[in-house]
Amino acid sequence: MAASVGKEVSNKQLILRDYVTGSPKESDMYVETSTIKLEIPSGSKAVLLKNLYLSCDPIMRIRMNRAEDSIFASYIPGSALSGYGVAKVLDSRHPDYKEGDFVWGPAVWEEYSLVEEPNLTKIHHTDVPLSYYTGILGAVGQLVGQFAKLTGCYVVGSAGSQQKVDLLKNKFGFDEAFNYKEEHDLNAALKRYFPNGIDIYFDNVGGKMLDAVLLNMRDHGRIAGCGMTSIYNLDEPEGIKNLMFIIYKRIRMEGFAAIEYYHLYPKFLDHILPYIRESKVVYVEDIAEGLENGAAALLGLFSGRNIGKQVLVVTHE
Amino acid sequence: MAASVGKEVSNKQLILRDYVTGSPKESDMYVETSTIKLEIPSGSKAVLLKNLYLSCDPIMRIRMNRAEDSIFASYIPGSALSGYGVAKVLDSRHPDYKEGDFVWGPAVWEEYSLVEEPNLTKIHHTDVPLSYYTGILGAVGQLVGQFAKLTGCYVVGSAGSQQKVDLLKNKFGFDEAFNYKEEHDLNAALKRYFPNGIDIYFDNVGGKMLDAVLLNMRDHGRIAGCGMTSIYNLDEPEGIKNLMFIIYKRIRMEGFAAIEYYHLYPKFLDHILPYIRESKVVYVEDIAEGLENGAAALLGLFSGRNIGKQVLVVTHE
Repeated sequence: MAASVGKEVSNKQLILRDYVTGSPKESDMYVETSTIKLEIPSGSKAVLLKNLYLSCDPIMRIRMNRAEDSIFASYIPGSALSGYGVAKVLDSRHPDYKEGDFVWGPAVWEEYSLVEEPNLTKIHHTDVPLSYYTGILGAVGQLVGQFAKLTGCYVVGSAGSQQKVDLLKNKFGFDEAFNYKEEHDLNAALKRYFPNGIDIYFDNVGGKMLDAVLLNMRDHGRIAGCGMTSIYNLDEPEGIKNLMFIIYKRIRMEGFAAIEYYHLYPKFLDHILPYIRESKVVYVEDIAEGLENGAAALLGLFSGRNIGKQVLVVTHE
Repeated sequence: MAASVGKEVSNKQLILRDYVTGSPKESDMYVETSTIKLEIPSGSKAVLLKNLYLSCDPIMRIRMNRAEDSIFASYIPGSALSGYGVAKVLDSRHPDYKEGDFVWGPAVWEEYSLVEEPNLTKIHHTDVPLSYYTGILGAVGQLVGQFAKLTGCYVVGSAGSQQKVDLLKNKFGFDEAFNYKEEHDLNAALKRYFPNGIDIYFDNVGGKMLDAVLLNMRDHGRIAGCGMTSIYNLDEPEGIKNLMFIIYKRIRMEGFAAIEYYHLYPKFLDHILPYIRESKVVYVEDIAEGLENGAAALLGLFSGRNIGKQVLVVTHE
């Protein structure tokens, strides 16, 4: 049993003040410190977690909406945010987990969590940084292009600063990359890099980029829909005007959600860990420290402040 | 050799006056009568056609645009429209066709056509009306729902008048149908007919209906994109606002073009002709007579004037 178990300790949380419309601001969230007794009620099958790393994900913005019929459960104003994270098991009355285990899975944005019905994945390989487990499933953006390179594709990335463009080309090994903020005509930019059209587009942003991509897809091209970060802050998204190209070019577009593929996670780790150990796949993190800086880290996703996967460290151990 | 072969005869054509922007008007087209000598130049492998039935298709509107980089070849102002039709072979120097054959395929909107490199399909089954061959491949709208019924689906149709709604329910056997022009809230209408969501949407219209459908799809639903009639007349389509539901609900949307499946046409006929002979599949045509009425027939597609597949009869024999 960890030394702290049984004690009453302070427990910082990052709380949503109220539902958000439009772009979120730091003042939409606040840190509150309460106390928690580090004890599992007898008779329960709960685990007691010390949260280490939290994943900052664009989808969290959607959960700040007041939306009765959304697919994503809205956060409750006055309660802590939640998402995915990495934690250490301080104590457990659940047969699948024991003290000292490292786990990843659903996580509340707080220092300590008592989880009544844990649905967490144990981390077996600790020779890569533990924080990687917040993102290596969710932060597909930087992995997709590297996987595509490994399978022999010509890969072009789009990012929002020169620094990120350099990262894509020099660190991730993309063939080309461009700064979409400096392209006044995205259609022309895509024509420059794909004079013969695009076979596969991995869509993480939606909006104007998707519209330009649709114009430049090849016949029978494929679009994997993963996210539409560009529109999460908009109450009324602008609308995709070139969707008829799905018909004109017989494109297939399909949406994917990581949550439906968790059963493949062990296989995925077997696949990616050797690449990471040999530096054939590179993984870049942007680390923010402390729940006090959580709101800023989260909002940075939408201004493009982060370089690499945005992780919030609650504590390193 | 047909009796008229060798003679010079008059040849009416329906001509596009100029490129069209916005909604086309009858005055954008005109009938011109020239003459044609019904003779195949020696040494050529041409066929001489007498056009019987022409298919009126929404896609023809797109070809009226001035568009250098469109996938669809623009019509040439001052020249006849073209599309698909059924014709009788008056004479042939091509080994695959002989006088008296009935064929369907690419067709110019005129009485007689000399086709230098014919790419026409011979019609072998003449126990169904010949005009059916203009539409039974292209007029998928009324067939899809009937096929879905035959495979056991619950089928709901959307149409633009009470008369069409009755047709869908009473003649085609759809479970339900509604008049989209009388639904001020398409989302609510779809919720009424699909309280548990939509598994498959066959999209022939795009626009607001597609937007409402996206809100009402079930997880892993499928959207077959066939056409977007609602936007063909718009210079700047309004844009699809709910495309993020492709991701939220992991929808697959794919565009299809009949032209890529012509090799399956004999198989398709084997499949559908027995149903038609037994009246298990019903096919409704709206017949306009004469090239003089071609422009009105074509424009009627966009006001929803036609009931059933719009066919233009050039001559019945």
